[in-house]
Amino acid sequence: MSAISEEAGKLLERERVGVLATTAPDGRPRQSLVYFVREGDRLLISTEPQRLKARDAERTGWASLAVRTDAQPYPSATFSGPAQILRSGIGPATAALMQRITGASEPPPEQSDEDLAAVNRVILAIDVERVTGSSYLDQL
Amino acid sequence: MSAISEEAGKLLERERVGVLATTAPDGRPRQSLVYFVREGDRLLISTEPQRLKARDAERTGWASLAVRTDAQPYPSATFSGPAQILRSGIGPATAALMQRITGASEPPPEQSDEDLAAVNRVILAIDVERVTGSSYLDQL
Repeated sequence: MSAISEEAGKLLERERVGVLATTAPDGRPRQSLVYFVREGDRLLISTEPQRLKARDAERTGWASLAVRTDAQPYPSATFSGPAQILRSGIGPATAALMQRITGASEPPPEQSDEDLAAVNRVILAIDVERVTGSSYLDQL
Repeated sequence: MSAISEEAGKLLERERVGVLATTAPDGRPRQSLVYFVREGDRLLISTEPQRLKARDAERTGWASLAVRTDAQPYPSATFSGPAQILRSGIGPATAALMQRITGASEPPPEQSDEDLAAVNRVILAIDVERVTGSSYLDQL
């Protein structure tokens, strides 16, 4: 059974950005805004391998993404699970993310893993195991 | 000098919710949506002392709040610093937060610390030391 309920899925369908959290080497949380796409129980984020968030995810093997809507009462939830950095088969997700970022009506042409490596793009993937802090999802 | 630049201050003025992150006992990040008010270099959040976020903040002495706007390119920033749970002198901040939550045109009457203790309300305060992940703040 998926960790992501139908209601939580609606939130992910409706929104395209969330706040990624990882744990820094000093044990403190690190947060930044990211675009995401969902693929089953996975949330995918395009980043660069030297970014602190990517290094945190690789080192700790865990990340979470907090997603909310834009109007009161702010339906929201946090999606957490094992995290990893993907370097192969990342063309489709990267194209989907670029479309979200640019707001284009069509995704850009898919790039090969080699081309993406050349421009230093990787995918941070969260395999969602827990959904916490769910609020007002019944109002979606 | 304040850790909060004029631009970052504009973001805090414009928004009323953010994603709070603390570190759970297992070392993983914990995130949830909260209303906040700013008081100088402090960000104040109303919560209950038994909530996991409050216990994390007391145990670790640190928290961060990620704030974003609602439209592309999503101006955003993360405000971090020492965190503590306040139980005295919390009437004004609690009233200001309740006004934000209810959307009322006026804040409710201020309650005494004793009355707030009776209904189990405390304030989680972050003394902002660092602003990270600032994006597109010049577009505010």
